[in-house]
Amino acid sequence: MNGNGIHDFIEKGPTNSISDVPGVKIGHCSIKKDKIRTGVTAIMPAEGNVFKEKLISSAHVINGFGKSAGLIQIQELGTLETPILLTNTLSVGAGLTALTRYMLDKNEDIGVSTGTVNPVVCECNDGKINQIRSQVVNEEHFLEAIQNASESFKQGDVGAGTGMICYGLKGGIGSASRKVLIDDKKYNLGVLVLTNFGSMDDLVYYGKPVGRIISPLLANQNSIDKGSIIVILATDIPVDSMQLRRVLKRTQSGIARTGGYTGNGSGEIAVGFTTSNRVSHYPTSALIERKILHEDYMDIVFLATVQTTEEAILNSLIHSDPAIGLDGNKVHSLKEFAELLR
Amino acid sequence: MNGNGIHDFIEKGPTNSISDVPGVKIGHCSIKKDKIRTGVTAIMPAEGNVFKEKLISSAHVINGFGKSAGLIQIQELGTLETPILLTNTLSVGAGLTALTRYMLDKNEDIGVSTGTVNPVVCECNDGKINQIRSQVVNEEHFLEAIQNASESFKQGDVGAGTGMICYGLKGGIGSASRKVLIDDKKYNLGVLVLTNFGSMDDLVYYGKPVGRIISPLLANQNSIDKGSIIVILATDIPVDSMQLRRVLKRTQSGIARTGGYTGNGSGEIAVGFTTSNRVSHYPTSALIERKILHEDYMDIVFLATVQTTEEAILNSLIHSDPAIGLDGNKVHSLKEFAELLR
Amino acid sequence: MNGNGIHDFIEKGPTNSISDVPGVKIGHCSIKKDKIRTGVTAIMPAEGNVFKEKLISSAHVINGFGKSAGLIQIQELGTLETPILLTNTLSVGAGLTALTRYMLDKNEDIGVSTGTVNPVVCECNDGKINQIRSQVVNEEHFLEAIQNASESFKQGDVGAGTGMICYGLKGGIGSASRKVLIDDKKYNLGVLVLTNFGSMDDLVYYGKPVGRIISPLLANQNSIDKGSIIVILATDIPVDSMQLRRVLKRTQSGIARTGGYTGNGSGEIAVGFTTSNRVSHYPTSALIERKILHEDYMDIVFLATVQTTEEAILNSLIHSDPAIGLDGNKVHSLKEFAELLR
Amino acid sequence: MNGNGIHDFIEKGPTNSISDVPGVKIGHCSIKKDKIRTGVTAIMPAEGNVFKEKLISSAHVINGFGKSAGLIQIQELGTLETPILLTNTLSVGAGLTALTRYMLDKNEDIGVSTGTVNPVVCECNDGKINQIRSQVVNEEHFLEAIQNASESFKQGDVGAGTGMICYGLKGGIGSASRKVLIDDKKYNLGVLVLTNFGSMDDLVYYGKPVGRIISPLLANQNSIDKGSIIVILATDIPVDSMQLRRVLKRTQSGIARTGGYTGNGSGEIAVGFTTSNRVSHYPTSALIERKILHEDYMDIVFLATVQTTEEAILNSLIHSDPAIGLDGNKVHSLKEFAELLR
Repeated sequence: MNGNGIHDFIEKGPTNSISDVPGVKIGHCSIKKDKIRTGVTAIMPAEGNVFKEKLISSAHVINGFGKSAGLIQIQELGTLETPILLTNTLSVGAGLTALTRYMLDKNEDIGVSTGTVNPVVCECNDGKINQIRSQVVNEEHFLEAIQNASESFKQGDVGAGTGMICYGLKGGIGSASRKVLIDDKKYNLGVLVLTNFGSMDDLVYYGKPVGRIISPLLANQNSIDKGSIIVILATDIPVDSMQLRRVLKRTQSGIARTGGYTGNGSGEIAVGFTTSNRVSHYPTSALIERKILHEDYMDIVFLATVQTTEEAILNSLIHSDPAIGLDGNKVHSLKEFAELLR
Repeated sequence: MNGNGIHDFIEKGPTNSISDVPGVKIGHCSIKKDKIRTGVTAIMPAEGNVFKEKLISSAHVINGFGKSAGLIQIQELGTLETPILLTNTLSVGAGLTALTRYMLDKNEDIGVSTGTVNPVVCECNDGKINQIRSQVVNEEHFLEAIQNASESFKQGDVGAGTGMICYGLKGGIGSASRKVLIDDKKYNLGVLVLTNFGSMDDLVYYGKPVGRIISPLLANQNSIDKGSIIVILATDIPVDSMQLRRVLKRTQSGIARTGGYTGNGSGEIAVGFTTSNRVSHYPTSALIERKILHEDYMDIVFLATVQTTEEAILNSLIHSDPAIGLDGNKVHSLKEFAELLR
Repeated sequence: MNGNGIHDFIEKGPTNSISDVPGVKIGHCSIKKDKIRTGVTAIMPAEGNVFKEKLISSAHVINGFGKSAGLIQIQELGTLETPILLTNTLSVGAGLTALTRYMLDKNEDIGVSTGTVNPVVCECNDGKINQIRSQVVNEEHFLEAIQNASESFKQGDVGAGTGMICYGLKGGIGSASRKVLIDDKKYNLGVLVLTNFGSMDDLVYYGKPVGRIISPLLANQNSIDKGSIIVILATDIPVDSMQLRRVLKRTQSGIARTGGYTGNGSGEIAVGFTTSNRVSHYPTSALIERKILHEDYMDIVFLATVQTTEEAILNSLIHSDPAIGLDGNKVHSLKEFAELLR
Repeated sequence: MNGNGIHDFIEKGPTNSISDVPGVKIGHCSIKKDKIRTGVTAIMPAEGNVFKEKLISSAHVINGFGKSAGLIQIQELGTLETPILLTNTLSVGAGLTALTRYMLDKNEDIGVSTGTVNPVVCECNDGKINQIRSQVVNEEHFLEAIQNASESFKQGDVGAGTGMICYGLKGGIGSASRKVLIDDKKYNLGVLVLTNFGSMDDLVYYGKPVGRIISPLLANQNSIDKGSIIVILATDIPVDSMQLRRVLKRTQSGIARTGGYTGNGSGEIAVGFTTSNRVSHYPTSALIERKILHEDYMDIVFLATVQTTEEAILNSLIHSDPAIGLDGNKVHSLKEFAELLR
């Protein structure tokens, strides 16, 4: 590799996870009992009251076969004003109700002296492992995930990832991060994914097509890329919402690096935010001052996004243990094939 | 007016409401007690099982300061597979939960042998009349609205419209319809609106600027166009989803005719569907046959859309009775100014 | 009208034209000979080198039955780096060629030490009055329009508007402007339109439905809304590109106020820019400082946009003289019906 | 690989090029003299008069740092009515002029008894090899490319690809195709690319990261992904325009497979069309009959799109000979590193 490229100005973050972005915390609530294997993951995007001091945000729909809620307002106004909750597809309503109540509790003005609030809940369908029709996730589970939020968090088959399947293997929560050097200053960019997509044949592990090696070893694999992926991107780089949208579009390239072709039945949604340039709910004057990255410096942000998305997906596989599907078949873990990955 | 124009091929529908489109039914559940004044309106889009035989659909965001759920999948796949529920902003979660359970009850395969379901819930903020933080709307209210669905339904301050304010006057549910003649065949197009937007000064009643006449007669009017409008458009014209998107974009022009300029704080969302060319959830072959309107014939559909949207909004005002706001001030009704409208 | 509304903080600009925005200049080149009746209008968006110091910009497609060029890059990067040229549909290529050469002449670095340039050319079809197949507009005409640019410019059947028809009457170039008061500071917002759309029956003159009065007086009117409108919006309000996109969406409401319903065959395109917060082609550091309007203050911008768009369209009609169509029929002017407008 | 997957129903097309789609022909005009190294490539999308019998089409902007013209109307109406021309960035205007005249010559009704025409011209910037400011491409070159159109055509540094650089190596025109089996019927899908993007370090050759091996062997490589890629996708699968849009979004995944991360300065544009279900300019009735693929069968189309896009890009590299840049440095060919590719 030559020394004059942007690759040299990107390095892995200290914990290689989304919480390398200062202020970001992740909490899980996993539910495992009888035929239930589901849960909640909460992304707390920043310190302080995010309703009163909103985050510049964007959302991008790669493939819209999904039921995530709250994206419309993010796309219009470019701000995020609540934590983000991840759960299973049929629990989005419960998540919205829980998050709305949580926000009402924290903000007495909502619905009284100011408008309402835009809760953000994203989802994947864990119905192959979890008896999803039971809709067991309730308000307490969502609050528990929020309360569990910490800079240190587990990856793999945990929280909303408890019942997910990715590339025919056990998937779930994965994360990765980068430090990027822009104009002599280091910034952080991190990604957290909820993975539930892909067919085994297609899996590529850092350039190595391991899927097509593993697949023949196992019975009953299906090569249709159903399921979904949620990508949450956090950064402290001072980008505006329109730039964040451009950044989020590159997550598709990160997914593609792992072998995904974004199937028809896949809900592939990316939501991003920056902790820089917070936006006051009650502005003190009409004009707000911002320092924003010049467009010419976006390449390193794009490249870091592709890298962290790829790595977060693979981390979701590496950190998951095997599970038993509702049909009684084993859902293997990539851990079992560790020797193939070297 | 000359005789060669498309205006001559448009006439009002028999009931001048969305249920002039065969199969469409509307049901309300109004909640009024103490400081509560809210509710639910259900749009049943067609006969039969809409999950198994989906409707070609589209959704368009005029201004995205809103929390409606379910639009992403409509925009990706171009199909609607559930009834549409309207309610207040903080009850979207409850609506999703209720509608999900309703769909699970009707379809045993969802979440077992087939994927999940995409419930559609739209909202406006009725917080000036309704103590919205109470979140009183529960699952039973949503089901009651569905069960009440009928071709004959009330307009005005009813259902989801119970607590809404439009142009500073009592708003709520309005509807209108047209019959259009295309190539010697008559088709139906209807609109139902939930109105909660506009400042009184701007109100235009069929070309007459009555708002600026009424406004000085009343105290404490605010000329900021906050609030929102939901437009539901139904037709039996055989348009595809991309054409429906074009149709829905014209609802903005209908709103503008009544004086609205689509304020920053307004969630203006349009969802449309056609009852023609239903799409099977379980296709029997890869190719499906459709008869689709040639693009050259779209003008009459566009014009009918503008007209019905305008008229539905004005109908929501005409049919509403006065109410008392949470601040104790009276929210007047356009009925009180009937002599100004002539 | 009550005194507490935003209407009170909007007033007409001193010349009521787009050049009330400091730095904006307009130039025309009209071509009239034999059966030719076409031309060019140039919008010079700001003082100085707009390639080196770009303008924050956005573009919005209301209805895309049009051939305007250069919008894709504006939508991606949010900047405008050339003048904007308006001409007839079949001369867009000539306009791009002319504008590219003009920019190369002004900037020796383009295509050598830096990238290329994104010329913006918009169009309407003047084929009913102009023998458009002749493609007579050449490079000199475009340069002449640029050289003619001035703060003082004609409206009506001039420049690119020479051959246009609007609401069945002679249309062309129109303009209007507003001063808006935001936080004790006055800003300017102006619109210039090229009008070539609408059917006579639909024309509304400041709320008065004059079209349906004029129409029966004249023979051979057609009520299909074909043709197009280009809306150029300039301001010195410090909005970012995403906010400008929201602003431009409101031009549809301004068009609707004049009676337009945005027909299938209509290319309705809006391009906007602000002269505040210029963006350097050669940034001196990664971070750029901006003062940006807080979203809560957008309503007055939206309302001013709707008003100026409406007024600019009507001005294009008021300023045009009658013409003779290629079919020998007279294209009347709204001037002829001045008594109806009072 | 297991036997139950969609991979088994995809095979390479007979010529592995876009002209495997019946009716599609490609023509080149290469211009090489002095410091000029540029040209034109014409895609003739179908037999017959494509203005009178249009093709269902779509366009997708992956990254909009580009100057392609004609996409707006494709996105609105979903139809293509001219050949598609590819050339260098500063010759788009000349291409539009040439293509407009070509269409006028073929269709006497355009601009007289019917509306205008929407020419489609796409571009990349070949300014590192070609003295692009000279703007030597003229009308004759475009017509020559059209006249040269044939099912048999060259790939590599030819036509519009003459001066292009991809992954720091000589790029240009590449193509690939697949036959897909859907419900017992075989369909064709082909891609043609004009490649001018990527940094050498990132190049991945069918999973093999050859770029980072080649890069250290060569001097003066730059790792910023500037430049652009145009992807033209043709098929005879009966998809509608909205489905084509979904298909085109997957080209980003194909680009990512070759190592591209879609840099800030990259104009990445995809235009697609199907030769099935032609749309008459002069419809004989309001309703048109179509057979359309059910959405459930889209996965194989998506996967074939990713594969052909990847392969077409790599073919553009494999077929190109080395060139000398304007700076005197050699632009190497991937051919020179053939042994690394095995």
